[in-house]
Amino acid sequence: MALKDILSEARPAREGIARALPILKQRFGDRLVTGEDVRRAHAHSTSYIPNQMPDAVLFAGSEDEVRDLVLIAGEHGVPIIPFGTGSSLEGHVNAPQGGVCLDLSQMDKILAVHAEDLDCTVEPGVTREALNNALRDTGLFFPIDPGANASIGGMAATRASGTNAVRYGTMKDNVIGLTAVMADGRIVRTARRAKKTSAGYDLTRLLVGSEGTLGIITSINLKLYGIPETILSGVCPFPSVKSACDAVIQTIQTGIPVARIELLDEVAVKAAIGYSQLDLPASPCLFIELHGSPTGVAEQSELFSAIAEEHGGGPFAGSTRTEERAKLWKARHNFLWAAMALRPGAQSISTDVCVPVSRLADCIEETRLDIEATGLLAPIVGHVGDGNFHVSMLLDASDPAEIDKAEAFIARLNDRALAMDGTCTGEHGIGQGKRGFLARELPEALEVMRAIKATLDPKNILNPGKIFL
Amino acid sequence: MALKDILSEARPAREGIARALPILKQRFGDRLVTGEDVRRAHAHSTSYIPNQMPDAVLFAGSEDEVRDLVLIAGEHGVPIIPFGTGSSLEGHVNAPQGGVCLDLSQMDKILAVHAEDLDCTVEPGVTREALNNALRDTGLFFPIDPGANASIGGMAATRASGTNAVRYGTMKDNVIGLTAVMADGRIVRTARRAKKTSAGYDLTRLLVGSEGTLGIITSINLKLYGIPETILSGVCPFPSVKSACDAVIQTIQTGIPVARIELLDEVAVKAAIGYSQLDLPASPCLFIELHGSPTGVAEQSELFSAIAEEHGGGPFAGSTRTEERAKLWKARHNFLWAAMALRPGAQSISTDVCVPVSRLADCIEETRLDIEATGLLAPIVGHVGDGNFHVSMLLDASDPAEIDKAEAFIARLNDRALAMDGTCTGEHGIGQGKRGFLARELPEALEVMRAIKATLDPKNILNPGKIFL
Repeated sequence: MALKDILSEARPAREGIARALPILKQRFGDRLVTGEDVRRAHAHSTSYIPNQMPDAVLFAGSEDEVRDLVLIAGEHGVPIIPFGTGSSLEGHVNAPQGGVCLDLSQMDKILAVHAEDLDCTVEPGVTREALNNALRDTGLFFPIDPGANASIGGMAATRASGTNAVRYGTMKDNVIGLTAVMADGRIVRTARRAKKTSAGYDLTRLLVGSEGTLGIITSINLKLYGIPETILSGVCPFPSVKSACDAVIQTIQTGIPVARIELLDEVAVKAAIGYSQLDLPASPCLFIELHGSPTGVAEQSELFSAIAEEHGGGPFAGSTRTEERAKLWKARHNFLWAAMALRPGAQSISTDVCVPVSRLADCIEETRLDIEATGLLAPIVGHVGDGNFHVSMLLDASDPAEIDKAEAFIARLNDRALAMDGTCTGEHGIGQGKRGFLARELPEALEVMRAIKATLDPKNILNPGKIFL
Repeated sequence: MALKDILSEARPAREGIARALPILKQRFGDRLVTGEDVRRAHAHSTSYIPNQMPDAVLFAGSEDEVRDLVLIAGEHGVPIIPFGTGSSLEGHVNAPQGGVCLDLSQMDKILAVHAEDLDCTVEPGVTREALNNALRDTGLFFPIDPGANASIGGMAATRASGTNAVRYGTMKDNVIGLTAVMADGRIVRTARRAKKTSAGYDLTRLLVGSEGTLGIITSINLKLYGIPETILSGVCPFPSVKSACDAVIQTIQTGIPVARIELLDEVAVKAAIGYSQLDLPASPCLFIELHGSPTGVAEQSELFSAIAEEHGGGPFAGSTRTEERAKLWKARHNFLWAAMALRPGAQSISTDVCVPVSRLADCIEETRLDIEATGLLAPIVGHVGDGNFHVSMLLDASDPAEIDKAEAFIARLNDRALAMDGTCTGEHGIGQGKRGFLARELPEALEVMRAIKATLDPKNILNPGKIFL
């Protein structure tokens, strides 16, 4: 999807929006904000796609308010763009046709914690950090960690995953059920609280990853996990990206239940060393985390060390001390800022693909060579246990030649992943940026998705312009 | 759903079927069978719902044949009832409106094993035992085990789970992607082979569990797992069902990664002792299996023993010897036959519900009292780590009074599970038998399911009369 095509899309909703705004103002009063600063902040897109502002932002306080917005918007054909924290990366919260941004951050109540069942129910605006803070005294935690302190609603809507997914799965695996307001205003609960069910179509997982295009998620029932007795984190350097990837492949094949296994290529490691004052050699490395009992973790650590050594890597020095672990993962989470420090003033544009694990070394190697040939500054980091990696391009977004170069690179990266039977996005989603690649990845499936969208949202009011070209 | 209602449903497809049969005969020749014996065998339903025979059975040999059947059936409004091994329990393979049973058992090729990626791709007629036999030399296995030697296609279509689900999840967690022939003849691949993806709607999980009503699954890409280094199985007796359930709850809450944890109540244990010559006390017990490294399994075993003891159970005597383990699980899998031996000549009618684990003891206890008050002979067994249990009623199916009694009992059981925020079926599916309960469990969601069905199968040719009332 070329940038120029995104910017030239039609805006069919103008008249309806003009009719609806006074009605919405009457219904919601000060909760509906039309000031430009607020609108601009809500179109923030961590991508090369420029901000496309909504006409108004509604700070919703309840499911009833969400339903009323949907009913009014439906009557007048007004687009609704659901918004959590705005940390999505493919233009998900842009408003290409204008409309109302539905900010759900004030719906931030933890509705129930069922510690005895290892589950909880939250409103969509609860962030993952807020949830884990609230859970602290229960001995439980919610593992999914996309890096940003995203909202649970946004994470569900985009099928988020992140560093822990190799062990705990993605949002699709950790949402037991949810409630959503559909385009016709109906409030639908998708599942009861039982751990498993075979009762009809899996609407939970149809809505997880639907990017706000099928329904607006108003509560989420999540799986929780006991905080592991022992957590060990550490870094393992490797002579090359290939040797690190080969070690990852063998680790996964051996069945070591790593909780995190993150690759940083040489460029990324240098950035992290500079930004986070890490004491590391400037070579590709894996950031590892192991969860379990003391003996279980020791066993996993030994197994991993042996694999690393076999591939020329190591030594693997892990620590169970909270401060050291925190420093390591803070450095990983601060990677975006570290990367941006490599080219002050540049914008970081992050893209992701995911391939079968056996193709990971090939895919990253070829991508590395492509980056060098293209002359981009673009470190690679990745949730490599899942075959998922990110390229963070540091660009001057005001230079059309750089944007063109980046777009051409992204197209080649996606071609490469698809040729390896991979996907155009492991976790960032489709949004606006990957619509063209989705059409190539799953052409027949896309027609089925379109049919479902047309049935459940016939007026196309729910996040229009996302997922579908 | 009362039996009399099922039997009185309309058969709107008679004329279309009459028109289509000669056309189908011409296209498929001897692959299309209309003899009564074959038709009767394909309507076999392990339930109290009588057989409802199709007009013909097609033994399909390829995806092309499936597509051609769908195209001809679509033109003439002929119902298609997909059939794997016929081991479903809620009338899934019945043909209430007649039509063509699509027997997929001859599509039994293992299309690819990607040992390095821990996945494989199979045709729908491959059975789980055939798959595991074929995998033996790779050191990998496919864990999902619903008891019967079901086909992978049928297991995907019904979102099967079974004894291992507590550790390895259900079919929803283990199907990476699939290919299906949709009602309009389109062949849709739902996902690439990457371990995770956020590329558009999750059609994989929409089709998993759709019971053949949205598309006919023609190939399945499955996750595989390394055969554990150590497997330990054993039985642990308890003084009461409640104490056993309480031990299960604590085991799950403690995070012990049990691979199997199966409850047999006292009636079930007595049946198993008699049928499988087990050397056990005649009290409720848990059948346990632990997977891991030798030290990991020893650690799990100690932890579980301590929990069992705390609840008055034990001793827990586990064995890692293959023959002893095989004997134990054979006894569990033969439970149906053991139960039937309790009342020679009776039919065993099995129903399942699933509740949050914290409610399990209550739900089973109340059900136990209900069984006694009703005067049914009905052992309880269950995949209790998931909160899922089965009641196997031994009935004289020719006695309307017994059927009435069973139906009333099932209704109360489902009410009980729903009141505990559970589901009317943890793993048996909706089929014909649970349509009324689904409508009560998820009333608004059911309308969304109906809309999807109407869009993707507007002529209602794919397994009509299932899931929806």
